[in-house]
Amino acid sequence: MTAALAGKTLGVIGGMGPAATFDFCQRFTAAVPAQRDQDHPRLLVDCDPQIPDRNAALRGEGPSPDLRLAAIARRLVRSGANRVVMPCNTAHAFRAGIDAVVPGRLIDMIGATVQETLVVARSRVGILAADGCLAAALYQQALRGLGLEPVLLPSDAQEDFMKTLYAIKANGPHAEHSILMQRLAEMLADLGADALIAGCTEVPLVLSPEAAPLPLVSSTDALVRASVKALQET
Amino acid sequence: MTAALAGKTLGVIGGMGPAATFDFCQRFTAAVPAQRDQDHPRLLVDCDPQIPDRNAALRGEGPSPDLRLAAIARRLVRSGANRVVMPCNTAHAFRAGIDAVVPGRLIDMIGATVQETLVVARSRVGILAADGCLAAALYQQALRGLGLEPVLLPSDAQEDFMKTLYAIKANGPHAEHSILMQRLAEMLADLGADALIAGCTEVPLVLSPEAAPLPLVSSTDALVRASVKALQET
Repeated sequence: MTAALAGKTLGVIGGMGPAATFDFCQRFTAAVPAQRDQDHPRLLVDCDPQIPDRNAALRGEGPSPDLRLAAIARRLVRSGANRVVMPCNTAHAFRAGIDAVVPGRLIDMIGATVQETLVVARSRVGILAADGCLAAALYQQALRGLGLEPVLLPSDAQEDFMKTLYAIKANGPHAEHSILMQRLAEMLADLGADALIAGCTEVPLVLSPEAAPLPLVSSTDALVRASVKALQET
Repeated sequence: MTAALAGKTLGVIGGMGPAATFDFCQRFTAAVPAQRDQDHPRLLVDCDPQIPDRNAALRGEGPSPDLRLAAIARRLVRSGANRVVMPCNTAHAFRAGIDAVVPGRLIDMIGATVQETLVVARSRVGILAADGCLAAALYQQALRGLGLEPVLLPSDAQEDFMKTLYAIKANGPHAEHSILMQRLAEMLADLGADALIAGCTEVPLVLSPEAAPLPLVSSTDALVRASVKALQET
């Protein structure tokens, strides 16, 4: 038996980017066991695109988003959120500020994704993630802590990845982005990866598990499942 | 030139149902002219599935959602929303309470849809809408006010419509729902309609304009376009 989600509230720190935020919300809504509107948990979404660019901040070329993220998290919890999520992998580099103001409330997207990766990976895991997420070594550290070896794109391919990421943010997902993302996934397979992490919320918008050359763990779907479970246990 | 949307905030009174709420949010995000995350307006979404059932209330068989809708609208405006939307046609029967607490803030979904219908309809407009929306005569009055004649489904077909609506809320949109919705649209065409209104936010989840036998005005898309315009003018 699954515990009821009705009456529980999930806070969503969103806007990184907006399309990825609502992709998460739709997948979450579809994953909730519900027979009618009233069976669903409440979702409070603050989709705030003025949160400073996470990658620029991690390059030391822009303001840190940490205070704004913490302020949003605090407002969501004060408004009734039992737990909060942040459907942006790179933003997890700034999670300390959130944990300081609402301790124990954030559902960890990186941890949820790596837990699912353990089920499908043998030893080497290719990572499709933004520069900032890689610079902060969020996935590399989590994988190595579990005995898995991270595999990254060569720097020119990583540049193509970043261009695609910002193109999706600018113009929405298009077929050409899917073709490029599939090519990058195949490159990670050629480099010896036996599983892949879609470690950026824009990736599942253009690359489905069916189109990937290896088992693909979507960080968005991992966070959806972890959120349903965490709310049930709240 | 389009006015900037960055720095503006749209409040979303959601949860009626949750899937329709995030369908609206995704379509709105895709419709915003933006080159990067920071060009988008902020969206504050209160997806509250505990809002009492609108159709039951209009049948006199359940509590009215009016106080809860007004409370959500007030909180959204106090949190910074310049304008608010309610991606649920039937809930517009209870808009008076919202207008009382946040006058002039609600972007009217019914009005936006009928304005777009004027462009494509000749004289008779078929309405795919929930019982409560029809009982409150929201579309019938708005259409007649503009010289257009509403065409409704016969009562047994309307019952099929309602069953499909609640099935979508329970299990998500499926292919069988699309087949039924297309059949109901064809029935309205046979009854003399020359255009159709998808006057329930669940309809665009299963019936696209391409699959409809007549020009189909989606109330969700009409609200998206009216919201972008209203925020630009704010």
